[in-house]
Amino acid sequence: MSGPRRPPGRRPGSADVTRRQIVAAARKVFGEVGFERATIRAIASVAAVDPALIHHHFASKQRLFAVAHELPDPIVVLTPVFTGPPGEMGSRLARAYLELMAAPGSPAISLLRSVATNDEAASMLREFLEDGALAIAEDLLPADQPRRRLALCAAHLIGLVIARSIVALPELAGETVDDLVSTVGPTLQRYLTEPL
Amino acid sequence: MSGPRRPPGRRPGSADVTRRQIVAAARKVFGEVGFERATIRAIASVAAVDPALIHHHFASKQRLFAVAHELPDPIVVLTPVFTGPPGEMGSRLARAYLELMAAPGSPAISLLRSVATNDEAASMLREFLEDGALAIAEDLLPADQPRRRLALCAAHLIGLVIARSIVALPELAGETVDDLVSTVGPTLQRYLTEPL
Repeated sequence: MSGPRRPPGRRPGSADVTRRQIVAAARKVFGEVGFERATIRAIASVAAVDPALIHHHFASKQRLFAVAHELPDPIVVLTPVFTGPPGEMGSRLARAYLELMAAPGSPAISLLRSVATNDEAASMLREFLEDGALAIAEDLLPADQPRRRLALCAAHLIGLVIARSIVALPELAGETVDDLVSTVGPTLQRYLTEPL
Repeated sequence: MSGPRRPPGRRPGSADVTRRQIVAAARKVFGEVGFERATIRAIASVAAVDPALIHHHFASKQRLFAVAHELPDPIVVLTPVFTGPPGEMGSRLARAYLELMAAPGSPAISLLRSVATNDEAASMLREFLEDGALAIAEDLLPADQPRRRLALCAAHLIGLVIARSIVALPELAGETVDDLVSTVGPTLQRYLTEPL
């Protein structure tokens, strides 16, 4: 129907195929041993590629985890949040997160669902936040207790998405992202920048 | 070892046994048809008791649901929150909720786990909050948009418990209830009493 069929299996030289092999191997290894114990070397071995290729395509284990779980790369999301005008940090964080999670069927919602029931998924998310988002806060957020501050924001935002998209409370499910940003932004601003 | 064994089955006249029968029937009926569609009459029929006995023991469907799921009765928890000194409403709400959820293995945590993965449990929690806690806010919280205000607090508190007890972020898992109340209380105070 759509031209000659491709032969199955690996096609060396196709960057797309290599990326897909690496992502599939990463999902398998993260799933088996968790984020912390998964090594680039082990993922490379499962994908049957050179570890240097993984560094070339994904730069870091955090980024590979994010791609494998269809999560945003935290450095890409958080750098503009923390480095833009300091008075609107809370609104930027709320908007960045809610826009990612607002879509029904967002992969981040299915990750939250697994986290709630699967200890291994909860550990992976914890390690991903610890080594990713919270480490970035430590580098970029100009305040005391940067990790605790971002952890408080994460807790609030996770709960907001659960109440809105999973429990589906009409008081929150009916709000637009703009409404929520203007309500929740000042809370996150306080957590990020004011004395705690 | 501990005296003669009791005969199995119903012992008419024992209020404890009747309560247990009603609670077991309630769990079954809520689980099958959800909170909204479950009727006192249906629960009475499964428990083989007179519906008046359910009213006598539990007063309302909300209270029966709470007992059946080992949740606190929202009117008992929220009345002192909303009717005490208005300047500390947020701290009282944070403390009431966190003390209930702080125990590892709290039944409320297992309810949250089911809610995340089971649409029926999510609907039950939504209807329970809508008809219970949010309705009480409507009666007792002296502010505009009382339901939306308490829904925002609920979202924050649900996320806090997930981040602390399920994802187990060390930045939050290590905090005492007192620490969390003093950090989160002002946020809830703003949601409950300040212009949104």
